[in-house]
Amino acid sequence: MNINTLGEARFPSPLPFHVSDKSRVLSNVIVNPDVPVSEELLLEVAGPRERLFFDPKHTRAGIVTCGGLCPGLNNVIRSLVLELHHGYGVREILGFVSGYQGLDPWRGSEPIPLTPEFVEDIHKEGGTELNTSRGPVDISVAVDNLIRRKVDILFVIGGDGTQRGGEAILREAQQRGHALSVVGVPKTIDNDVAFVSRTFGYVTAVEEAVKAINCAHTEAHSVHNGISLVKIMGRHAGFIAAGATIASQDVNFTLVPEVPFVLEGEDGFLAALKRRVLKRAHAVILVAEGAGQHLFGPGDDQYDASGNLKSKDIGNFLRERIEAYFKAEDIPNTFRYFDPSYLIRSVPASAEDAILCDFFARNAVHAAMAGKTGLVIGFQHDTFTHVPIELITSRKKQLDLNSPAWLGVLASTGQKFAQFAV
Amino acid sequence: MNINTLGEARFPSPLPFHVSDKSRVLSNVIVNPDVPVSEELLLEVAGPRERLFFDPKHTRAGIVTCGGLCPGLNNVIRSLVLELHHGYGVREILGFVSGYQGLDPWRGSEPIPLTPEFVEDIHKEGGTELNTSRGPVDISVAVDNLIRRKVDILFVIGGDGTQRGGEAILREAQQRGHALSVVGVPKTIDNDVAFVSRTFGYVTAVEEAVKAINCAHTEAHSVHNGISLVKIMGRHAGFIAAGATIASQDVNFTLVPEVPFVLEGEDGFLAALKRRVLKRAHAVILVAEGAGQHLFGPGDDQYDASGNLKSKDIGNFLRERIEAYFKAEDIPNTFRYFDPSYLIRSVPASAEDAILCDFFARNAVHAAMAGKTGLVIGFQHDTFTHVPIELITSRKKQLDLNSPAWLGVLASTGQKFAQFAV
Amino acid sequence: MNINTLGEARFPSPLPFHVSDKSRVLSNVIVNPDVPVSEELLLEVAGPRERLFFDPKHTRAGIVTCGGLCPGLNNVIRSLVLELHHGYGVREILGFVSGYQGLDPWRGSEPIPLTPEFVEDIHKEGGTELNTSRGPVDISVAVDNLIRRKVDILFVIGGDGTQRGGEAILREAQQRGHALSVVGVPKTIDNDVAFVSRTFGYVTAVEEAVKAINCAHTEAHSVHNGISLVKIMGRHAGFIAAGATIASQDVNFTLVPEVPFVLEGEDGFLAALKRRVLKRAHAVILVAEGAGQHLFGPGDDQYDASGNLKSKDIGNFLRERIEAYFKAEDIPNTFRYFDPSYLIRSVPASAEDAILCDFFARNAVHAAMAGKTGLVIGFQHDTFTHVPIELITSRKKQLDLNSPAWLGVLASTGQKFAQFAV
Amino acid sequence: MNINTLGEARFPSPLPFHVSDKSRVLSNVIVNPDVPVSEELLLEVAGPRERLFFDPKHTRAGIVTCGGLCPGLNNVIRSLVLELHHGYGVREILGFVSGYQGLDPWRGSEPIPLTPEFVEDIHKEGGTELNTSRGPVDISVAVDNLIRRKVDILFVIGGDGTQRGGEAILREAQQRGHALSVVGVPKTIDNDVAFVSRTFGYVTAVEEAVKAINCAHTEAHSVHNGISLVKIMGRHAGFIAAGATIASQDVNFTLVPEVPFVLEGEDGFLAALKRRVLKRAHAVILVAEGAGQHLFGPGDDQYDASGNLKSKDIGNFLRERIEAYFKAEDIPNTFRYFDPSYLIRSVPASAEDAILCDFFARNAVHAAMAGKTGLVIGFQHDTFTHVPIELITSRKKQLDLNSPAWLGVLASTGQKFAQFAV
Repeated sequence: MNINTLGEARFPSPLPFHVSDKSRVLSNVIVNPDVPVSEELLLEVAGPRERLFFDPKHTRAGIVTCGGLCPGLNNVIRSLVLELHHGYGVREILGFVSGYQGLDPWRGSEPIPLTPEFVEDIHKEGGTELNTSRGPVDISVAVDNLIRRKVDILFVIGGDGTQRGGEAILREAQQRGHALSVVGVPKTIDNDVAFVSRTFGYVTAVEEAVKAINCAHTEAHSVHNGISLVKIMGRHAGFIAAGATIASQDVNFTLVPEVPFVLEGEDGFLAALKRRVLKRAHAVILVAEGAGQHLFGPGDDQYDASGNLKSKDIGNFLRERIEAYFKAEDIPNTFRYFDPSYLIRSVPASAEDAILCDFFARNAVHAAMAGKTGLVIGFQHDTFTHVPIELITSRKKQLDLNSPAWLGVLASTGQKFAQFAV
Repeated sequence: MNINTLGEARFPSPLPFHVSDKSRVLSNVIVNPDVPVSEELLLEVAGPRERLFFDPKHTRAGIVTCGGLCPGLNNVIRSLVLELHHGYGVREILGFVSGYQGLDPWRGSEPIPLTPEFVEDIHKEGGTELNTSRGPVDISVAVDNLIRRKVDILFVIGGDGTQRGGEAILREAQQRGHALSVVGVPKTIDNDVAFVSRTFGYVTAVEEAVKAINCAHTEAHSVHNGISLVKIMGRHAGFIAAGATIASQDVNFTLVPEVPFVLEGEDGFLAALKRRVLKRAHAVILVAEGAGQHLFGPGDDQYDASGNLKSKDIGNFLRERIEAYFKAEDIPNTFRYFDPSYLIRSVPASAEDAILCDFFARNAVHAAMAGKTGLVIGFQHDTFTHVPIELITSRKKQLDLNSPAWLGVLASTGQKFAQFAV
Repeated sequence: MNINTLGEARFPSPLPFHVSDKSRVLSNVIVNPDVPVSEELLLEVAGPRERLFFDPKHTRAGIVTCGGLCPGLNNVIRSLVLELHHGYGVREILGFVSGYQGLDPWRGSEPIPLTPEFVEDIHKEGGTELNTSRGPVDISVAVDNLIRRKVDILFVIGGDGTQRGGEAILREAQQRGHALSVVGVPKTIDNDVAFVSRTFGYVTAVEEAVKAINCAHTEAHSVHNGISLVKIMGRHAGFIAAGATIASQDVNFTLVPEVPFVLEGEDGFLAALKRRVLKRAHAVILVAEGAGQHLFGPGDDQYDASGNLKSKDIGNFLRERIEAYFKAEDIPNTFRYFDPSYLIRSVPASAEDAILCDFFARNAVHAAMAGKTGLVIGFQHDTFTHVPIELITSRKKQLDLNSPAWLGVLASTGQKFAQFAV
Repeated sequence: MNINTLGEARFPSPLPFHVSDKSRVLSNVIVNPDVPVSEELLLEVAGPRERLFFDPKHTRAGIVTCGGLCPGLNNVIRSLVLELHHGYGVREILGFVSGYQGLDPWRGSEPIPLTPEFVEDIHKEGGTELNTSRGPVDISVAVDNLIRRKVDILFVIGGDGTQRGGEAILREAQQRGHALSVVGVPKTIDNDVAFVSRTFGYVTAVEEAVKAINCAHTEAHSVHNGISLVKIMGRHAGFIAAGATIASQDVNFTLVPEVPFVLEGEDGFLAALKRRVLKRAHAVILVAEGAGQHLFGPGDDQYDASGNLKSKDIGNFLRERIEAYFKAEDIPNTFRYFDPSYLIRSVPASAEDAILCDFFARNAVHAAMAGKTGLVIGFQHDTFTHVPIELITSRKKQLDLNSPAWLGVLASTGQKFAQFAV
């Protein structure tokens, strides 16, 4: 699967080590003679190339961060800047401010010149020094601006919608005849990007979620019939919920988008919760924000500024249903609701995520300097790759219900799978 | 101010060091010839006494924890048990379960025999191993139970209402002719107990609140016109809010129960917030749960199971008013609401609080073994004291608006005091 | 690559999901037409099997932890016990105490019966509840003991030497005709095990190492010409040093076993350090304990109780050489030495490591119950595998100098590779 | 006890609240008719004064940090700058670099102009942004420099020797007729300053020390006969050791400078340690660096650059003696030595210390602006005070062996006092 390039790479790389453009990563690593072979998708291996399309002395790069906060954004910005500056000798780097708004000179502030001094300590803070926002930009205006400012490379840090925006910018630039490299770094705290086994920020989010679960467990465990309900991120995928469940080992029920469940009746969630509370006098429930959407009636769909369908509020829905159920069953209890998402996503990256950010960012620079465009950096089977934007945005990753992650959830919670069914 | 005793202390103390019963702590430590002298209140200095009323070999003690969670409850339980066991040789210690309910044999579970093995590692966890609950117990039933179980000493860990309950139990026991020592350890995460300069759990709460404020600051600071509102504990007093403001230095507005404020108008809070946001493009507001109660109309008063008037929901009130105000003023912004109280109060005690818990608990044991009764351990001017229950529950501590704490809040936030007035 | 089994698996698995015995993981996932193909090594995919060799009702398992501490040991013990107990219904689980010593009834204590209650909270503490020790056991005595105690399965948590010990025990048991399943969980904080992309405890160690580096950086940065030298784990491989360098971004020189270096002369380390200090007035050096062994003369080799060659003390060696060099060069400086290894390896596992431990442990149980023996659980390309003991102990993993990890070190430190050579 | 002033305070304070110059804090707060009254020392209450000696528009202040690192240095610098700038309107603030060296234009770098922007985030980092050093400065040269730079106020953050240096500078300035206010903020992580119940950084140090003790305990507890020895700060006073012991509850022997002890013989420390290890199979020892100095022979005294007598190396001394003793007694054991001091003192201030720093700093500014000079800010009985430099440097604070702190150590460790004697 080749990546588009802007043209012949004529400049020698200043770096001592190079990856061949012919290296590919297999998509299927498990073989079984009894199982039909899936289609093999060979992705380019990321890394420094021997020759560059852009002459570093005359290259100008831009960086933009979009969407919700995620631990590690500043690490990515920092490593992009340092690799451009120290690795290749690029001296002109612009930080567009407040997401895609910042590409529009009528709506955004002036971009920030990014230097090693500016980024020196930013990785020690959460959030993003470039600010972020949701929502699109007028593509034509944005490309006018990029051309006017002579931007050769645009690094786009964001989720699905953001990467699609990058592709639209690239197409418009191509139509204008402007040789623009658009290279994405995938950002989703939910870890639900296809072709990326682990997105940056995810491990930190799990670590922080475990702290919240510890508190929820302590609250439930320090009273008679304590019930703690923790809502966590995860619109389409339950990776954070699953990871936090296994790491914590104190969760008794884990509800994720991939596994619809029955609420009422003897086999339903509420009855299972009752049995648990009567038996052990306390319970902790962890629910991903996108779980249980089938429990809501049709209608009332809402979209955020980025155009994503908003999850309906399963946290408060469950809260009300649980409280009503235990009242009807006349079981005295102490119920506590935890909604720690903003406390989780705004912390600095953990060491593991800091490392991941560094790898994503430096590989993005390598790809861009070689003149590749229209790609997002992927990460699979321990290897960083180049993934075409349209491919990576064409699917989403969800929990494999036969993976160690989901089996580990079932083992750790002891929740009976038979109790839940569509 | 003498403390009641159960009778002559005839048994020698096994401890090597003793505090005289005649030692008193001054209540006024600041003198000024121009200022009339306040009434001097001389409190007994706490500590081991030379002679004991109870013979350790034949003494049985009980411990009960009541009300909301607070970091350090397990530390207090542990040090009570270890001082009784190792310090005095008391071998019979009962942990009553689930607060005052546990004193009622018809409602509670069987008490837990407390040993050094049982408490070995409990201080490393938040919550309370004895469980807790709100609400009173039938005093007559409780005293029947204490007499039947031959409990000589009852250690009561809890707030105002709990300590008053301890006094009622004591009076009933006296009427029955049962020599019961009731010794309280003051518990309020709000730090609003008179005669106690710092209650256990308060420092930990401030430390955790600062973490939440850091997140709120990052959220506000990573978007254009970000506004973060953090609600924190503090029903009658703003000590946690003040401490967290000064420690964090990232709060722009601190609202506490002691300082009513105007919401509307040019001098009001909303206009001040607008000016801040227009000038700096982000703002962090910290509100104690008991602040702004004057903004609610009369009626609708609600009480918790302990009989405390519940604060009206200033967090969500402000949230709605701020969102409406900025909408009316047509100032785009990103608003985030943080409600971290349960995440704060359920963590283990910090080192500083662990030390405080140890001191409170061991002094409580010393007082009880000497036969003192009807007191709560106080802490003022770096000295632990004996305070009669009726004295300590007769008043509450609030922020002194001329103290370094409140002046530090004004200096750190820069909020203009003139903007707020009843 | 098939794994030995004890015989026909006749009992149905109680688990709902199974992995086929025919599934294999590719060892080579990168292809390049210009590069000759490496030998392909097909490892069994780990996971629950459809049929069991052991009847859970009549199975007795043993667990032993050996060698140095590593974050996550208690997590592994706990998940082994819970998977055996809840997953399969095995009720007899013995925890042998103090490593291989515990297999020798003449030297060790009585084994501990392991139950869900015993392991309930152990994962929240560092260290190992089963204790550990270095050094071998008399194989014949150990197998006598295992036979006498009717142990069917032995889980061995430890490094190279420990796993070789497991193989010896297995061979002896085979000779005696005792059907023993020996399944290893690889334990090395250094992350240097072949066929395992990440060992448990490694991520936690990096996280903790970064904290120590932060302190070292602060010390160096708060004085004029501050030099901080931090010695970290890594006998044969620099993974911790590399990870911590990239995560921290504050290290200026990273020295690892894989890259010998010249100390003296204009191209040497000392001169490079001098240039750095004169230019920036502070420097942080991170050295893996196994780095620079070529700088020591022959002789004086020492071995630990496990028979591993001890690294010579590169930390104090460099300390002396740096201090002497700067004295000779007459450059005033403040030198600080940090040796945090015991503070790093004794903490509880981070969330990420806790998850990894759970996966390793449950897969070990699945393998053992299916009657497989003489294997260690591996982890490559995001997949858990079965690796024959003799294969996994036949090689060691080291830093690939063309991997993102080492390139990231060079990029982050800016240390010039040309300065170092054998 | 009056503080010297530079002259009439003629300028009105811009602050809304003031403390009277006549307010005094009692030094004795405990009374007992049987105990003779100690001499009463009435210290001035700190706080903003109604009238200022310096006209803020024309005032220039300098700040210098000296000696070893301590958590909170940056907080103090920051609050000094913000109170001067926002509180009083002082616009000229110089940060002298690298301790007293920075006062000497021939040795130090140019001072840094300190602004609210410069100090914005410095409190989130450990160390000192102004750098520090040990050792004196030529007083005459320093005063020349202060006069030439028109510095009116010098804030001196440091320990004993540093404060004495401040006094010498003040005397020299007085002789030259330069109206200089010298105000000290006491800095000692050991918490051994008289007239200061708690110095900044101390609470953070205890918190970090507890983490190291946890690791030491885990190491000792995970092997048979594990012995962990932790050396901690405390040259003349055992406050950190005592606090960490009580907070941790995992220390079995605490050795402090205030309590000399016998090493050999049946009543000695080594025999007590042996009994503990034989009984419980593990032990943790915490030793303050200044403990056990009586065990060293005379001679070999060394002094640091500040002129302080260096403690002899009790950590390695005990290490050798313990290892030799257990070898002689033929008791196999695993011994670990921990020396975490540099990892402790370089972290950022905890919330509690951050608050303390803010109070110390703002009170220092109030004192200086009122024209007071030759004082250090004290803190006793919950009140900040003005203490003459010569008074505060004339004595040291040590552990009171009848205080809750030392009694808590004895209770928590169970170490028998009778075993130790001079």
